[in-house]
Amino acid sequence: MARNTTVKADQNAPAITELLAKFVVNHPSRGWDDNVEREAHRTFANWFGCAIGPSQHETVQAALAAVSELSPAPQAAILGRKERVDIANAAMINGISSHTFDFDDTHLKTIIHPAGPVASAVLALGEHIGASGRDMMDALIIGIEVSCRIGNAVYPDHYDRGWHITGSTGMLGSAAACSRLLKLDADRTQMALGIAASQPIGLREQFGTMTKPFHPGGAARAGLMAALMAKHGYTSSKRALEAPRGLLQVFSEKTDWSEVTEKLGETWEIALNTYKPFACGIVIHPSIDGCVQLKNQHNLKPEDVRKVTIKVHSLVLELTGKKTPTDGLQSKFSVYHSCAAGLIFGRAGEHEYSDEIVNRSDVVALRAKVEAIVDDSIDEASSDVTIETTDGRTLHVFIEHAIGSVERPMSDEQLKAKFMDQSAPIIGQEKAEKAYALAMQLASSADLKELLAAATLA
Amino acid sequence: MARNTTVKADQNAPAITELLAKFVVNHPSRGWDDNVEREAHRTFANWFGCAIGPSQHETVQAALAAVSELSPAPQAAILGRKERVDIANAAMINGISSHTFDFDDTHLKTIIHPAGPVASAVLALGEHIGASGRDMMDALIIGIEVSCRIGNAVYPDHYDRGWHITGSTGMLGSAAACSRLLKLDADRTQMALGIAASQPIGLREQFGTMTKPFHPGGAARAGLMAALMAKHGYTSSKRALEAPRGLLQVFSEKTDWSEVTEKLGETWEIALNTYKPFACGIVIHPSIDGCVQLKNQHNLKPEDVRKVTIKVHSLVLELTGKKTPTDGLQSKFSVYHSCAAGLIFGRAGEHEYSDEIVNRSDVVALRAKVEAIVDDSIDEASSDVTIETTDGRTLHVFIEHAIGSVERPMSDEQLKAKFMDQSAPIIGQEKAEKAYALAMQLASSADLKELLAAATLA
Repeated sequence: MARNTTVKADQNAPAITELLAKFVVNHPSRGWDDNVEREAHRTFANWFGCAIGPSQHETVQAALAAVSELSPAPQAAILGRKERVDIANAAMINGISSHTFDFDDTHLKTIIHPAGPVASAVLALGEHIGASGRDMMDALIIGIEVSCRIGNAVYPDHYDRGWHITGSTGMLGSAAACSRLLKLDADRTQMALGIAASQPIGLREQFGTMTKPFHPGGAARAGLMAALMAKHGYTSSKRALEAPRGLLQVFSEKTDWSEVTEKLGETWEIALNTYKPFACGIVIHPSIDGCVQLKNQHNLKPEDVRKVTIKVHSLVLELTGKKTPTDGLQSKFSVYHSCAAGLIFGRAGEHEYSDEIVNRSDVVALRAKVEAIVDDSIDEASSDVTIETTDGRTLHVFIEHAIGSVERPMSDEQLKAKFMDQSAPIIGQEKAEKAYALAMQLASSADLKELLAAATLA
Repeated sequence: MARNTTVKADQNAPAITELLAKFVVNHPSRGWDDNVEREAHRTFANWFGCAIGPSQHETVQAALAAVSELSPAPQAAILGRKERVDIANAAMINGISSHTFDFDDTHLKTIIHPAGPVASAVLALGEHIGASGRDMMDALIIGIEVSCRIGNAVYPDHYDRGWHITGSTGMLGSAAACSRLLKLDADRTQMALGIAASQPIGLREQFGTMTKPFHPGGAARAGLMAALMAKHGYTSSKRALEAPRGLLQVFSEKTDWSEVTEKLGETWEIALNTYKPFACGIVIHPSIDGCVQLKNQHNLKPEDVRKVTIKVHSLVLELTGKKTPTDGLQSKFSVYHSCAAGLIFGRAGEHEYSDEIVNRSDVVALRAKVEAIVDDSIDEASSDVTIETTDGRTLHVFIEHAIGSVERPMSDEQLKAKFMDQSAPIIGQEKAEKAYALAMQLASSADLKELLAAATLA
């Protein structure tokens, strides 16, 4: 058995487990400016709609069928449905649902989808303990701060290794948020973060399968249970995040600790959150945006297009390089299909990623005309799009920042339209209107009854 | 955001997810020789006693209190207790219990504790679906084969990086065993392994806290749920284990794929399983064995000892180098305390790792006389023990293989004595006798009723 241990370790990492626990417990309620508060409500409302939209999808059905084998107690709501399950599994299922259409929010610095793991846990636990909207909003903002700061510290090395960073940091955000909501003291919150640290969830290899949306759902569940265990005295390492054999050093040899420690409680990652106008991986968005812009500017019809050439960062093809997707889920990982959809339909919502559309002959034909060229001088948030037309024109646009980015954010009206698009077919127009309005004023609600009545089926 | 992706990846790894799924489904029942069957029963009986023993411990109490907040359905037994919870949480709690005293089985090639994640899931699911003892034994042997082969493929690099390999491979063993028990087909079993692959659990940093025993418990739960999700059509990557961004390549750049592929279904890792005579980390055992042997050979009393010098591999101190443990849990990670216990009591069972013993003045005094010297020419399964006595003698023994190792296995009588030591104080002498006898003939039981009645409280 004998061999040498050669893995490097940083023995002098700052005590971030303790630091974050104290931050979670001590930061004052509503201790941030109006912009943060506004973006947090947009985050919650966007997540809410994204969880309602796929609630009847086979991914959610399969997860719920498995959970039903446990005969769970009806403690908490599943958005868009009538069934109720225990809080841990409600957190899991709403987390799965919210990422099923790949349409949820994105923290662009890390490609984390921050709401899924945190909001799913906050909603389930908040409903069960009768938390106020204010307490839930505080928990959401603070939880997302924890997971995104951990993400900032390990990105990009951690992601490059193959972790799906949403789930592999999200359990910490969930544990932080649930600890806050349960009003655990700093010691127990530190234990909750430690218990969660042993449960990173998610591999990039799962992209294109149901296990991708499982990652935020599993992270929500793990963090919630970690907080419950800590509440009852379960212990963990006080240095579970930063120790030489703690989570961050196990993840990566390139951790930047200052991303956790600097200006903690002064700057807010949730203020940088963005919402997708297109129902696919964020790295495809600038290419779709370019195709839609050229279509609209030049009134292009599919038959006008001879060739589409996009120049993109290598990561775009690594993540979304499926040339010939055969179903809706695979098509979300195809920049080729996405460009064709943008050119034919002028949009790329959930419908444009359905099995039917993916296999439609005009879509397949146009997809085959899309060529992607790797150019690592182009940022992964950008795309250089050139269309050659059948009548010999060459059209070009460079998209530095896609619609939906921090630099070109969706307006509240666009966000509401997206919410209604997803929710109205499930819960009806009237309830969807109500759910959106209530979600956008969560912090001022005394309880969740009205909101959940609007967002579920009777 | 743009940066280069520099992490190496092996594009030509064999299709082990598919290979293992087919093995799990197709290997015939009782398709191994008598020695394997015998060792599997010893594995089960040892695990059973190890789960009953700590069933009233604060670790189990805290986990059960957290689970109770979910109002779980009474589907499955918690060993040594009267409460019943849903199958996922029963798997978790029995898995936690079985590792709480650090007294369970060890696959020495990888330091995996194989039974915890697998047997805990098999017992809970087996009880719920009314499985036969034969089916459960098949599932146990096959599940352990999967987790230990994955462990063989990534050890030692994976462990060196800081993963607690019991939990970070155990979810695969649990998923394999539960898929077998649910009689899933090969496609669904492959999905179950894939869903489990996204959920490795466990950091070595947690050693000495309650989160260490959480690792096998969490892995048992994760694997069981992965199998239930796959049963209902939940999908995952078909190459979740071997793809360039799949689990094993995310874990390690030093995977030996042949450890999974070669002689699969012909050799059996469970035949190499060992059982601890001492209630602490396996790497301490040769040092305790040496102290106990010298004490017995020379009739040493604590006051005869001037100095104890042990020469051990560096891993021993890395894992168990706590010089001044202050409670029972910490003392399990102290080779110093363990040597003192061996010299004073001639044994190191759970009682010798209690808070009371750890702080007893004679133990503390003798502990201070123990010096550990790193010598990487000594295998981590060995220890060189020298005792200088107050009357000037120098006593020496070199322990190549400790009692309880593959080379010096515990007899069935010793195994039963260990079982009784742990179980009788909890369930009483008579029930403990019965539980041991039934556990040792699990494969021939029609159902679990008698076994579980003996092993739980009314």
